[in-house]
Amino acid sequence: MSNPSILILPGDGIGPEVMAQVTRIIDWFGEKRDLKFDVETDLVGGAAYDKHGVPLSDETMARAMEVDAVLLGAVGGPKYDNLDFSVKPERGLLRLRKEMDLFSNLRPAQCFDALADFSSLKKDIVSGLDIMIVRELTSGVYFGEPRGIHKEGNERVGVNTQRYTESEIARVARSAFELARKRSNKVCSMEKANVMESGILWRDVVQEIHDAEYPDVELSHMYADNGAMQLVRAPKQFDVIVTDNLFGDVLSDCAAMLTGSLGMLPSASLGLPNAEGRPKALYEPVHGSAPDITGQGKANPIACILSFAMALRYSFDEGEEATRLEKAVEKVLADGVRTADLMGPDGGTPVSTTEMGDVILAAL
Amino acid sequence: MSNPSILILPGDGIGPEVMAQVTRIIDWFGEKRDLKFDVETDLVGGAAYDKHGVPLSDETMARAMEVDAVLLGAVGGPKYDNLDFSVKPERGLLRLRKEMDLFSNLRPAQCFDALADFSSLKKDIVSGLDIMIVRELTSGVYFGEPRGIHKEGNERVGVNTQRYTESEIARVARSAFELARKRSNKVCSMEKANVMESGILWRDVVQEIHDAEYPDVELSHMYADNGAMQLVRAPKQFDVIVTDNLFGDVLSDCAAMLTGSLGMLPSASLGLPNAEGRPKALYEPVHGSAPDITGQGKANPIACILSFAMALRYSFDEGEEATRLEKAVEKVLADGVRTADLMGPDGGTPVSTTEMGDVILAAL
Ligand SMILES: CC(C)[C@H](C(=O)O)[C@@H](O)C(=O)O
Ligand SMILES: CC(C)[C@H](C(=O)O)[C@@H](O)C(=O)O
Repeated sequence: MSNPSILILPGDGIGPEVMAQVTRIIDWFGEKRDLKFDVETDLVGGAAYDKHGVPLSDETMARAMEVDAVLLGAVGGPKYDNLDFSVKPERGLLRLRKEMDLFSNLRPAQCFDALADFSSLKKDIVSGLDIMIVRELTSGVYFGEPRGIHKEGNERVGVNTQRYTESEIARVARSAFELARKRSNKVCSMEKANVMESGILWRDVVQEIHDAEYPDVELSHMYADNGAMQLVRAPKQFDVIVTDNLFGDVLSDCAAMLTGSLGMLPSASLGLPNAEGRPKALYEPVHGSAPDITGQGKANPIACILSFAMALRYSFDEGEEATRLEKAVEKVLADGVRTADLMGPDGGTPVSTTEMGDVILAAL
Repeated sequence: MSNPSILILPGDGIGPEVMAQVTRIIDWFGEKRDLKFDVETDLVGGAAYDKHGVPLSDETMARAMEVDAVLLGAVGGPKYDNLDFSVKPERGLLRLRKEMDLFSNLRPAQCFDALADFSSLKKDIVSGLDIMIVRELTSGVYFGEPRGIHKEGNERVGVNTQRYTESEIARVARSAFELARKRSNKVCSMEKANVMESGILWRDVVQEIHDAEYPDVELSHMYADNGAMQLVRAPKQFDVIVTDNLFGDVLSDCAAMLTGSLGMLPSASLGLPNAEGRPKALYEPVHGSAPDITGQGKANPIACILSFAMALRYSFDEGEEATRLEKAVEKVLADGVRTADLMGPDGGTPVSTTEMGDVILAAL
């Protein structure tokens, strides 16, 4: 049998720097744990645009459809800000999500004990925080038609369409309920059913799937504006949150920032399982391409490394190895090893991106 | 000359309780400062539905168009949760906003010195916080057509439309720039131009209005997801934020919660000025109808009272009297007078809704 395959797309900005550390860790698992992967690397985002004139080539897209998992670094940068909408770096990422049908985006917002002081929130509000936001990722206003800018008389008009079908809502709801069962068995669904009909359908379908298939899970509904408030006020009231593409974008970033350590947070984007029960999957850090610190050895590789841990768990059914990697990261943090973004008043040992890779490998 | 006119719509839940204190304060200004208003009271939301079968009658709507300012308490409650979308309490509020053309919604997020400890954020992150969110209020996905739930084959599909015209964006941008000139001269505009064409138009028009009419104001642009993060991370970086209806809903609630004292925050919704330079205007607290504490004398009337202070400033050109009222509120807080929502570990003198009205009147 051949090894499972991974396509690495480092992308732009600090993407290649943090991904370099992930590659070392993948190698370590091959050598020391006999977990071998066939790894290939390709371009996405601005890097792909520079070479091919598009942020994702058809060849790369085809490879992404074939491999067992995709690891992505980050896309975008000031150099590409004025490109036409259709070839912006983000379009490469959005094409991957859409064509791989990665409808379920898991974004953990977890507060690491050693880093609780980094949050702008009071320690007792966030310490021990462990929420999972499940964001619908392939529909809604990101992809709905009609869309565009047109003229009406003398005026420009901008249009986008929020559109959700029953089955699109049902499948992401199921993925949230499944996750909840492995956690604290509690789901909160967020929408604006008080002003949007698509929100009414969202609420109704989530409730129906709950009643028919997951009556054992505790389900609540909340308007998204109140959701933003409650995340700031008392985030620990939540376990799993399920919401649409756009609210998920904003609320998951809000939740991520509560932890105070954005450089630590991974994400997984999953599709439907194939015949062997393996979902199409893309893993990426929550942080962006951070052009301001690119090439300075300052980037924190942990979010990207923990994204690989998610790959071990969700794509390769290697939960124990995932935990091994996560524990190594926790140990390094507890030892006070810190990239620049994690340097606080309490001191700690400052390290570069590569040195952080070194100590995590040592801890493994 | 007749007195300026005010239409009071107490609405549902704690709305009537908090509005009762505002009425006393309006009377005080008439007696002690010779600022007399013609006040009339009517129904909105569930209260209007109970009487008329609609959340806002045509007669009330007509009066709202005629008066100089509308003061609204709050709408909604569990009793009305299962009503049809078209007659839900919220529709009354949305009709007022739309027909009065109240396109500019000012939502201050201000942290009161005496209450900085109430925030879930660290004191140094929020103390002295004073942001103004300008939310577009009459367009976008709240009102765009087509909308609704329909069938496609066996499936239900929910649709809403995000639609912005150039002039809709231009007028709310102007209102943000005007405000900024009276504050720290800094505007940050938020959208998702990286994924939505309506966001591209938003960004372009805000920039054009800036360059042509307000080049002296410092303008920046931020994606709304990053905006949510930055609000949590370092809210004091902002002065005026301008954004669309839906992002404004979520981000202003997030910002409000940063202050830790939701029961304190007023809002103004303004239209275009009439011939005398007075805009159509509606003032309301940011908090909701709080069914859980309705009728218990626990509600904090300050948000509603400060909404009247905004009316004094923006509708009646009585900035000094507005400041007088705001100062009275600050004094009462500094003296440790506290409704239930403001009771913290530091003690303070607990008071009821009416008693809070008493001490504010005394402080005036
Ligand atoms: C880069 C951008 C297109 C993307 C999004 O809006 O989904 C990002 O913000 C995210 O959350 O992954
Ligand atoms: C009550 C509701 C319709 C309203 C809105 O969504 O605009 C409220 O959340 C607000 O922000 O004023």
